This record gives sequence, structure tokens and C-alpha cells, in this order.
Amino acid sequence: MSNSVPELLNPNLKAMPSDYLYHLDINVANTNDTSDIQQRFGDVKVVCMGGTGSRMRALAVYLSEVLGLPDSSDPEDLCARGHRYAMYKVGPVLCCSHGVGSSTFSVVLHELLKLVKYAGCQDPIFLRIGTCGGLGVPPGTVVVTKDAFNGLLRNEHEIAILGQRVVRPAKFSEEVIKDIMAYGVEAKDSFQTVSGNTMGTDCFYEGQGRTDGAICEYSDEDKMTFLKKCHSLGILNIEMEASMFASVTQKVGVKAGDVCVTIINRLNGDQVTITMDQKHEFEKRPFLVVGRYIKKLLLH
Amino acid sequence: MSNSVPELLNPNLKAMPSDYLYHLDINVANTNDTSDIQQRFGDVKVVCMGGTGSRMRALAVYLSEVLGLPDSSDPEDLCARGHRYAMYKVGPVLCCSHGVGSSTFSVVLHELLKLVKYAGCQDPIFLRIGTCGGLGVPPGTVVVTKDAFNGLLRNEHEIAILGQRVVRPAKFSEEVIKDIMAYGVEAKDSFQTVSGNTMGTDCFYEGQGRTDGAICEYSDEDKMTFLKKCHSLGILNIEMEASMFASVTQKVGVKAGDVCVTIINRLNGDQVTITMDQKHEFEKRPFLVVGRYIKKLLLH
Repeated sequence: MSNSVPELLNPNLKAMPSDYLYHLDINVANTNDTSDIQQRFGDVKVVCMGGTGSRMRALAVYLSEVLGLPDSSDPEDLCARGHRYAMYKVGPVLCCSHGVGSSTFSVVLHELLKLVKYAGCQDPIFLRIGTCGGLGVPPGTVVVTKDAFNGLLRNEHEIAILGQRVVRPAKFSEEVIKDIMAYGVEAKDSFQTVSGNTMGTDCFYEGQGRTDGAICEYSDEDKMTFLKKCHSLGILNIEMEASMFASVTQKVGVKAGDVCVTIINRLNGDQVTITMDQKHEFEKRPFLVVGRYIKKLLLH
Repeated sequence: MSNSVPELLNPNLKAMPSDYLYHLDINVANTNDTSDIQQRFGDVKVVCMGGTGSRMRALAVYLSEVLGLPDSSDPEDLCARGHRYAMYKVGPVLCCSHGVGSSTFSVVLHELLKLVKYAGCQDPIFLRIGTCGGLGVPPGTVVVTKDAFNGLLRNEHEIAILGQRVVRPAKFSEEVIKDIMAYGVEAKDSFQTVSGNTMGTDCFYEGQGRTDGAICEYSDEDKMTFLKKCHSLGILNIEMEASMFASVTQKVGVKAGDVCVTIINRLNGDQVTITMDQKHEFEKRPFLVVGRYIKKLLLH
């Protein structure tokens, strides 16, 4: 797998004369000669993805500093015309927003995977940098995902294809996890970075056992039983993307990692009580971890 | 149900002293005295939702013209600080973005339902205004959803709650459909508006039987068999929200409708070939239909 361009898992792509990456608004005019795409994106080694465009813009600015790149204080949104996702390029790193949850993320993930293939990127690494709820860890803890569980508490991802239920494994790259933990963490950090399992759900309220949504048909006791069961499976955090992200990247053989900061300890409650300012400080923690990891990665 | 404030389906809300609608960044400081929220949002009769913030902003500007409201050419994004969703208020109408797909939409839907409850809104109507793929109808057709199917071709929505699979019905309000078809459509329209079933999937590529994603493990023939089966169920369009949206609103007893314009006829191919300019023209068609419907509704 090392130093190879992702082949993806779709034989039809070879037969398509052109490919319009619709949601990114990037036109691959000639799939037999993608030199224009190679010129723009061929040097990409890492694709970072996260919920909001503003956070991805901040990450791009941060990484350009960390990597000592020429001034990128005002990076250009390469997907502005599509109005759905924001994407910035700083040196060999793409920073792209994916919205909230698997449905929106899977759309842009398919298109980013096709983009790195057309661009001829060598062994690119896909990273999600996100926020999440924590389980038994203090708010502000950074969690690097090992196994991804879905809302049914299974270490897999379920998807309906041609009207049938299809189940796929959902594991992140052990090499990426090991390297992030080795190079991303420093003893002087004012916060903890831990490696553990993650549950990705399709619903923030009922899907994560919250009792403060518009619908709740279970008791506080039911919820706590569920959260403790999650915790007993080694699940340290809950978000809305991990199982889809792990399963798609594992399926196509692209190395990936999920690095999220917890903004609440769900064993203590459902409402997010940190201030927006605290949240912004917490959101920078995965930047630190991922920034150090990427810097080391690019030295090789 | 007429002229009543949505009660929702969560007894816990009564016991919560405050409620922070996290993703909207709206703080309900005192749930026993929500007069501040009532003052800001109590007059809301219609909540419009759609994928992008820019489209919801354009809808807000359009509706303020249609409804003859004082100048709203530059409406304020009420959720800007949350960075995830954009929300505009023009008179008795909220226009809020929901992103791509059910996962992101369900988050903001739960919070909007709680918002109209705290605001004491009388019998509010929730409308989704979107874009979609069409089945057997020409691009540019406006489809008003009757029954919502999920990716398993069932007229229901599936959600994992406390680790268990929960299945709920997914029907839109017959009254809303009838009224949209009666008041929203005009003979002089240069496009067709039809009422039919909609499939909402969690994946744009494999979930909708596309052969141009990063993964495709089925043949063109399998895909066509699937799409024809969809069509035989009365499904005229495919998007990524309908089944979740119908099931949640039906469950809490809030009237809702889904009005989408098709930008492709999937029986003829997978790639979106209309230009961005055509797309912007198509996107205005549901505005026309929904604008006339809302105007009529507010006269009562």
C-alpha cells in the first residue's frame, strides 16, 4: 500500500470520460488526462476534514504556520461556488468541511477520494478533526479513535445499497493511531490525549441517548444503562461520523484517523455547558495534536 | 390540533430549568418564563428549512418581497455564532439551513421544534425546500412529497435508539400537500409541480444507486432494476432527508411538507450536467410554489 495512488473500488470510473465532483464544484474534464487536477492537487499528502467551514479555515491558517509555509493568513475557499462545503489548501494539506454527521460527510468523502485519485496523490492520509461528547473523560480530552461503533453498538457501519442492508467493518488504521499518539502528544500538554473506541450515531438526541431532544421515550435510568454499556465497550466518545468514515476508508484502502475533542462528559449530563469561548479553546487542541503529527509525517 | 402550541414528546423538558439550543446557539435561560423567546419568535407560523445557508438567505429575501414586508434585503443570520446553521427571520417565517442529509437535519430539527414550543408558536408548519434527483420526470420538476421511503424502500424511518433499532412511520400532512398543490401551483408556470413519493437515503452515491462514487460494487443493470423498482412504488424523486423529516414531525404532531426541485433524471444517468446557472434558476422554482402557499396560509 505504501506510496501508491488510491485505486478506489469502482471500475466504472475508468469508463467515464469526465467526472464532475458536484458538491465540491470541481470539474474533472478529461479523466484520461487529469494533468490539470494533478497540478492543483497532486502534492496533497493529508486531507483534513471537520464539521464547520470556519474551523477548517482556522486549521488551514494554523497548519500553514506550523509547517512554515509562505503566508496563508487568508486562504481561498476552493469550493465556494458549490455553497455546501468549504475547502482550503495549504501546501500538501487539504482542509475541507463536512457538516454534521455521516450523511453530509459521506457525500464529500466520496468526492475527496475521487479527487486524490484523479490528482495522483501518493498514499494520502485522511483525518477527521472534530468535536464530540465524552464518556468518563473530562471535557477537553482529545480522543484518537481505535474501533468505530455505530448506534446499534456494533463495530461496523450499516448502509442501504440498492434497497438492501449492507454491513461493513469500521476500523481505523493502526499505523495512523500509533503515529498520532507517538508524534501528536507532548508531556507538556495541558490536556489529555487518549486512544479509545468511538460511537458514531445518526442522531444527536435520541441516537445518543440524550433526554433533552424534541422526542424522548426512555427514562434517565435507561439512558445511563446505555451509556455505561457504551463505556464498557471501551467507547470514550460519541459523535456522528466515525463508523461511516472508518468503513468507507477501510473499504477503499485509504489510511484514516479520527481525532476529536470532548466538550461534555455525558456520564454527568446532556446539556453542553461550556461557553463558546471555552469551546473555541477546546477546538484548538486537536489542531495541536494533528499539527505535530502532520509535521513529522511530512519530514519522511 | 388546530391553533395549538406543539407539545412535543419529551416529558423531561418540563423539568429542565433552562435549555441551551446548542447548534442554533439560542439560550432559553428560564423554561418557566420564556417571554424573551416568545417575543422574538412567538409570531412564527412557518419554519422553512433547506440545505445551504445561502439558499435560505435568498429565500428569506424572496419571501419578504412576496409577503410585502418592510425592507429585508439584508437579513441577519440569527445563528452566526454557532457556525453550523444559518437562520433568518422574515415576519412570521423562519428560514433555516440544515446541511446535506438526515444526520445534520435531525439535529437542527429537534432544536427548531423546541424553539417553536418555547416561543408558544400556534400550529406552526415546517417545510423543507430542497434539491433532489428525479425519477422519470424532467429536470426542473417540482415534487411535493406524499409518502417518504427510506433507502430500504420502506415507507418508514429507522433510527438506532439506546442501541436498538426503532422503526417509525414517515408520512407528510395530507392537508399541507393538498394546500401546496392548490395554492402553490399556477397554470402559467413554466415548469411542472407534481405530488409523489420521495426516497430519502443516507448516502448520495451507493445509497442512491449511483455508479460514479468512490465505491460501486453493482452493475448498471442492478442499478436500473433498483431505480425502476423505486419508480414502481410511486417514487418520483430521491434526496437525503424525507424519511427522517416526515417521521420526526409526524411523531410530534407538527404539520410538515417537503418541496424539492429535481436537477437530474436518474433514469438517464448519474452525473449532474446542468450548469450552476441552471441550477440557481431551478432552485427558485420551489421558492415560487412555497411563496404562494405561505402567502395564502397567512391570509387565514
